[in-house]
Amino acid sequence: MDESERLIRVATLGTPTGPSPLPLATATGTGRARFVTEDVWVRNRVEVAREGGPDPGDEILFEKAGPRERLFFDPASTKAAVVTCGGLCPGLNSVIRSLFLELHLGYGVPEVLGIRDGYMGLDPAVGRPPIPLSREFVSRIHTDGGTVLGSSRGAQDTGRMVDFLEREGIRLLFCIGGDGTLRGAHAIAEEARRRGLPIAVVGIPKTIDNDIRYCTRTFGFTTAVDLARQVIHAAHTEATGAPRGIGLVKLMGRDAGFIACGATLASQEVNFTLIPEVPFQLEGEGGLLAALERRMDEREHAVIVVSEGAGQNLFGEPAAGGDASGNRRYHDIGPLLKGRIVEHFRTLGSPVDLKYIDPSYIVRSAAANTEDSFLCDQLARRAAHAAMSGRTDLVVVGLNGSFAHVPIPLAVERKRQVDPEGELWGAVLAVTGQPAWLGG
Amino acid sequence: MDESERLIRVATLGTPTGPSPLPLATATGTGRARFVTEDVWVRNRVEVAREGGPDPGDEILFEKAGPRERLFFDPASTKAAVVTCGGLCPGLNSVIRSLFLELHLGYGVPEVLGIRDGYMGLDPAVGRPPIPLSREFVSRIHTDGGTVLGSSRGAQDTGRMVDFLEREGIRLLFCIGGDGTLRGAHAIAEEARRRGLPIAVVGIPKTIDNDIRYCTRTFGFTTAVDLARQVIHAAHTEATGAPRGIGLVKLMGRDAGFIACGATLASQEVNFTLIPEVPFQLEGEGGLLAALERRMDEREHAVIVVSEGAGQNLFGEPAAGGDASGNRRYHDIGPLLKGRIVEHFRTLGSPVDLKYIDPSYIVRSAAANTEDSFLCDQLARRAAHAAMSGRTDLVVVGLNGSFAHVPIPLAVERKRQVDPEGELWGAVLAVTGQPAWLGG
Amino acid sequence: MDESERLIRVATLGTPTGPSPLPLATATGTGRARFVTEDVWVRNRVEVAREGGPDPGDEILFEKAGPRERLFFDPASTKAAVVTCGGLCPGLNSVIRSLFLELHLGYGVPEVLGIRDGYMGLDPAVGRPPIPLSREFVSRIHTDGGTVLGSSRGAQDTGRMVDFLEREGIRLLFCIGGDGTLRGAHAIAEEARRRGLPIAVVGIPKTIDNDIRYCTRTFGFTTAVDLARQVIHAAHTEATGAPRGIGLVKLMGRDAGFIACGATLASQEVNFTLIPEVPFQLEGEGGLLAALERRMDEREHAVIVVSEGAGQNLFGEPAAGGDASGNRRYHDIGPLLKGRIVEHFRTLGSPVDLKYIDPSYIVRSAAANTEDSFLCDQLARRAAHAAMSGRTDLVVVGLNGSFAHVPIPLAVERKRQVDPEGELWGAVLAVTGQPAWLGG
Amino acid sequence: MDESERLIRVATLGTPTGPSPLPLATATGTGRARFVTEDVWVRNRVEVAREGGPDPGDEILFEKAGPRERLFFDPASTKAAVVTCGGLCPGLNSVIRSLFLELHLGYGVPEVLGIRDGYMGLDPAVGRPPIPLSREFVSRIHTDGGTVLGSSRGAQDTGRMVDFLEREGIRLLFCIGGDGTLRGAHAIAEEARRRGLPIAVVGIPKTIDNDIRYCTRTFGFTTAVDLARQVIHAAHTEATGAPRGIGLVKLMGRDAGFIACGATLASQEVNFTLIPEVPFQLEGEGGLLAALERRMDEREHAVIVVSEGAGQNLFGEPAAGGDASGNRRYHDIGPLLKGRIVEHFRTLGSPVDLKYIDPSYIVRSAAANTEDSFLCDQLARRAAHAAMSGRTDLVVVGLNGSFAHVPIPLAVERKRQVDPEGELWGAVLAVTGQPAWLGG
Repeated sequence: MDESERLIRVATLGTPTGPSPLPLATATGTGRARFVTEDVWVRNRVEVAREGGPDPGDEILFEKAGPRERLFFDPASTKAAVVTCGGLCPGLNSVIRSLFLELHLGYGVPEVLGIRDGYMGLDPAVGRPPIPLSREFVSRIHTDGGTVLGSSRGAQDTGRMVDFLEREGIRLLFCIGGDGTLRGAHAIAEEARRRGLPIAVVGIPKTIDNDIRYCTRTFGFTTAVDLARQVIHAAHTEATGAPRGIGLVKLMGRDAGFIACGATLASQEVNFTLIPEVPFQLEGEGGLLAALERRMDEREHAVIVVSEGAGQNLFGEPAAGGDASGNRRYHDIGPLLKGRIVEHFRTLGSPVDLKYIDPSYIVRSAAANTEDSFLCDQLARRAAHAAMSGRTDLVVVGLNGSFAHVPIPLAVERKRQVDPEGELWGAVLAVTGQPAWLGG
Repeated sequence: MDESERLIRVATLGTPTGPSPLPLATATGTGRARFVTEDVWVRNRVEVAREGGPDPGDEILFEKAGPRERLFFDPASTKAAVVTCGGLCPGLNSVIRSLFLELHLGYGVPEVLGIRDGYMGLDPAVGRPPIPLSREFVSRIHTDGGTVLGSSRGAQDTGRMVDFLEREGIRLLFCIGGDGTLRGAHAIAEEARRRGLPIAVVGIPKTIDNDIRYCTRTFGFTTAVDLARQVIHAAHTEATGAPRGIGLVKLMGRDAGFIACGATLASQEVNFTLIPEVPFQLEGEGGLLAALERRMDEREHAVIVVSEGAGQNLFGEPAAGGDASGNRRYHDIGPLLKGRIVEHFRTLGSPVDLKYIDPSYIVRSAAANTEDSFLCDQLARRAAHAAMSGRTDLVVVGLNGSFAHVPIPLAVERKRQVDPEGELWGAVLAVTGQPAWLGG
Repeated sequence: MDESERLIRVATLGTPTGPSPLPLATATGTGRARFVTEDVWVRNRVEVAREGGPDPGDEILFEKAGPRERLFFDPASTKAAVVTCGGLCPGLNSVIRSLFLELHLGYGVPEVLGIRDGYMGLDPAVGRPPIPLSREFVSRIHTDGGTVLGSSRGAQDTGRMVDFLEREGIRLLFCIGGDGTLRGAHAIAEEARRRGLPIAVVGIPKTIDNDIRYCTRTFGFTTAVDLARQVIHAAHTEATGAPRGIGLVKLMGRDAGFIACGATLASQEVNFTLIPEVPFQLEGEGGLLAALERRMDEREHAVIVVSEGAGQNLFGEPAAGGDASGNRRYHDIGPLLKGRIVEHFRTLGSPVDLKYIDPSYIVRSAAANTEDSFLCDQLARRAAHAAMSGRTDLVVVGLNGSFAHVPIPLAVERKRQVDPEGELWGAVLAVTGQPAWLGG
Repeated sequence: MDESERLIRVATLGTPTGPSPLPLATATGTGRARFVTEDVWVRNRVEVAREGGPDPGDEILFEKAGPRERLFFDPASTKAAVVTCGGLCPGLNSVIRSLFLELHLGYGVPEVLGIRDGYMGLDPAVGRPPIPLSREFVSRIHTDGGTVLGSSRGAQDTGRMVDFLEREGIRLLFCIGGDGTLRGAHAIAEEARRRGLPIAVVGIPKTIDNDIRYCTRTFGFTTAVDLARQVIHAAHTEATGAPRGIGLVKLMGRDAGFIACGATLASQEVNFTLIPEVPFQLEGEGGLLAALERRMDEREHAVIVVSEGAGQNLFGEPAAGGDASGNRRYHDIGPLLKGRIVEHFRTLGSPVDLKYIDPSYIVRSAAANTEDSFLCDQLARRAAHAAMSGRTDLVVVGLNGSFAHVPIPLAVERKRQVDPEGELWGAVLAVTGQPAWLGG
């Protein structure tokens, strides 16, 4: 082992001792698929400097996720629960379904509860009672968007939620949600530990923006990019169907422009991509309006994509307030851009025909595409494996093509963003042909 | 012939004498597909009263559209032009393509011009020069939304447009657009007649709202309903994915609610459909808010679809102004409904989680679906036949499963609307379960 | 009433006397959607000869379908059953769902049974017991292809089926299937009449081939054309992606080429369409192979679509046997064409690269598209209305844009086919550019 | 640097000296996207053993792909060509388009030729002349399946192809194809080197089966899985729509079952997945037929997916011959399985209703989905960068989420397969519930 490596273990409830009922081999060379052993790790870094390159810095290795040969919980006497929180995201039903199938059919866990309406359902004072999941109930849900359990934003009282888990005898809790939800899951794990309750709390990060650290791809993201690409195509069709047409599309992406960048690269029809990580100016020689003028002069149409969190510098003051999930509120950049662009060209005497599209919930409510269906199934089953082995206070993530365990506090420490000096943004610049800097 | 029947002939430029080059039979019983003869008519009415029913009133019969055995124009010396006007509508490229193919490959017309940017392109002072259409140019355009020719709203000077046609020697002009466009086409036909120019002006009605009289189905409509249904499904997913969720969708439909009704019936997921033809109130025992309260109490979620032209009575004064096409401006009913509903339930102390979706240009810019692709091809080829036979100042329409010629002035006299006493609206009431009357 | 008109009434069980619970108006002019009155009829013919045209012959008028003011059955004491028979067809679940909703929510019929596996489920000796339908059961089924009730081919003993209906007290039986199924439904209606049982038997024709007489469009057809168009596009892509490429697609259509014609017109990418109604030869100057040679010389690629029932004349003897539904077996034209074409060009010394696609069950199992979803809902609700009014031994059909009742014996007397002298085939010739006659 | 690491450099034509015209930064910390430096490497292995795990063996590091600060070729005097070979694969047009755009718009290469019909187009004696690519030509091609350049299977004479390159002054040759194509590209590079011609030959691996070593994901694969999932859904619908229904789907996968495995995991509706890497028996207690019996007894329906290369052991002798690409011919496993299964259950006296689907070219000809569109663009642009920097005889691959250069000989040494002891196959067993071993 290299000196500069850091191995990250997640918390456990105790030593796993019981045998796994899964029909897997315990050793290589048998010709049969095998359990994951404890000595295998997943690297966080795929690219490294060699031959005189700069010092690569410390490297982090995470536990490889997957089925273990020894279990902490006895499946026959274990009760599980699943909760989905926050805004909709493609794939929620697939995650619910595969969690149930792996726990019930794979391990033989007799009862898996579906908690209703997010964390509200963990507090009987405010929420509806859970649904006992069954093979019939989950049979076809994976082809639908949304969540059959319902969801809600916002936190609930940790003590009351753990009271509920204790009273119901729930030993495995799967929390699917964004960083607010995961912080709540961490609090539940902490409180359970404090009370001496052997409850495994396992999260699956849900962020359509794909902005979780140590997580190459969150579920729902590629479906969102699929839909975004279709909307961009609509905007492009409108832009080219009218004299001096401009299509302006607002996409999701509060703090991270991954959806905007991904959709730009997949659609190949965007001329300006504006993301939160790269501030821009409207006015001035180097600003967006001047660049857009040049584009309109040359090609007579343009397509602009803007992340919802981009361009907040163009508003005088930060927007006040936030939503129930604790997300900071943003000014609405779409209408501002629309107004300023239309006004600019009218003033110039060469008006444009701008069409503004805000697809909003059309994206969030979509059914998981093929890639996300695959990903949801794989994440959910590995979450079941992690919980059954007695791990807790962790998330299961897809990392560099493999799957790993990451402690919740590390995963939510800060968000992942598009690197303005990195390859992804470089690729966006190449595809759009936009100036590297839309400065003032 | 029944006394009460009225046979409607369209205008002609003269007697067709030349033989058609199309490889069709001239008589029945040959086993080969045939030309349409002049003695066949298409009924406007499919349903009739018999056995003591009320007097059905006058019946209108239109000329059956289709290829004629005799032509007015000699294909080899005829020049044609196609223009697309107004907002985008699925199928425009299919119409352009099939017009070209029928004229060029079917009849042997050597030159077909694609006029750029709507009527602007007929006036060189304001528009770009036309594109000569070719087999390569149109080869794959039918799978794209939008219009390869560009489009624009608004009228141009009739005299200058006819000057252009005269100067260019254009003998067939195909105008694809809404009622404003068709009125412009009529003016061109009139002016050409006044000047003694043998120019055939043939329209194909383009209204995504499907609100042209004597026209069962306009192209683009079923594609619009397709898209609308998908958006309604998104709204339904959002409504059921949150506690007390409401999905609110604004659809196209300025004066006619056909898209809203069609999408309601196809999706089966709408609880309230609001259209321009059926005024409604928000407040009061019989109003929308009270009905929505009952729905939320019973089922905890709801989906509402509103046509953009519905509920204008809820605003104090008519909206001022209009667009370049001369369409009256409407107040934006979507945000009003959203605001009033959210406020109403907040005041009641049982807040709802309302998601508002305005798909706007996503629908207009879609590529034609299968049904519309078929329809566009059939309309376009019959428009070519009508023009080649010397007919003018007419539109080609799909009528009761057949195709017919309708004089432009008759077609644009007034718009078609959903009959609040009719079957379609009755079907919407049955499917939504909404009260027959959302009165005050 | 015209002397030459023939009004077709369907059979009834007796005079309807009870009031309908549906919230519809009983008269025009009230501003509310209304019941259908008995004096309204639907014309079979939309096109008529006038002004010296040939005598149009007798005209048939059918009862207009829809909700009646008076019912024969008392909803509260009526029990209904639905059965789906034969091969899969897009829309079956929509029909089941809307039948249930109209009967249960609209009329208040307390119990609607879903018969399993076609007519097998009406004979307990061979079939599984029925499923009592419920709001939860049907809630999301309309977005899935197939049939939740299962289906099977073939007849069952009429006496035993009527025994079952009698014993179960079923008063309304809805049979969804092809002509074999409808003949079975007729036999059930006859037997019930013979036994003096007041059972209303109402059929909804199910033929993906769209080949039922007096029925403009059967459900599932446009979805089939949608899928067929996609497959043709695949074949076109393959044909143009290889030197001297040919794409050959076999589509459904045993006795009628409507799917092949519809898909040809919608796709615009077919060069030869071969249907059962228009025999063709392979060899000889006017045969397919010679025409294909010319096409390959000119354009270097070609797309051919063949209905499964086309070209049976090319086989020496009729194929022996048939399927459980009593359908005549056909020789498999696809591989024969493939073999002969490949061999022909190899012999000529200019081999082709032929790709053969048989989409088969991919089409039959598709979920209903927008148009078919609409159609299924409308047919199913009208079937419920017809049964509740005491009508029996009929099918509900879409006819010229309206909906009508047709006695089963008349509907299944003989099949509808593409008219080789008609407009549809003429349109196919125009779009493909194929010779009017691929004779020997 | 670790002793056990092996750094793989690709061949170069000489030292790059000219400045790149791309607007990228040359150093980190500038806030601008940067060139890739030569000291960055991409690891082949993401998972490693630590803490007493088995020795991980040698590790391979590949050059990171991407834009270089220094070029070997002067763009203004460089001529490029692109050729697509072998069977169709989703994304070919995207690759062609992005190659052209990066070379022409990014670097300013004045002329990029599109070679027609695969390697045939590099030998004027057998092929058609190339198409000079232009911005208009490539404008919309990325939304179409297939290849606008045409393709063909099989090798051409290396000497004659290099003659052509030499005569035309082509300096950059991009070869898109499978391992046969890449071996041809290697031969061209060798011959050019032998003649002292400074020609950069860069490959982009095209294998819908995703079976190239050192390449995590080849383009076209996720689109193929998308389509395969839809077909499986059709099979599932058929299987559940009939009594004792079985859906049998044959998918691509000659030597590797990645498509079958991916589609199984994404669809969640498969009960038996049969791939080339895991032999199986039909007969005997542990064979497929016995397992299928148990499944049918329990659930009454089943879905089976088989890769085209699976079960070759069930045929007596290997199939004779091969295709023009040099691929070994396989026996057709689909009909064999269909026949044996139907026969087995008929003999048992409990016949099944088996529907067999072979989607074949429907999958290969599909347009690239979002994921593949992204991937194609990224691969193509990096291929352009590699060639401009003077690298040759390499392929550009996606590796563990990054992109790398791999020498062609290493890439085609042997194929990648599904590891029967690995995670992917374990996941398939978990999802299907099929026995780990369908032995005799």
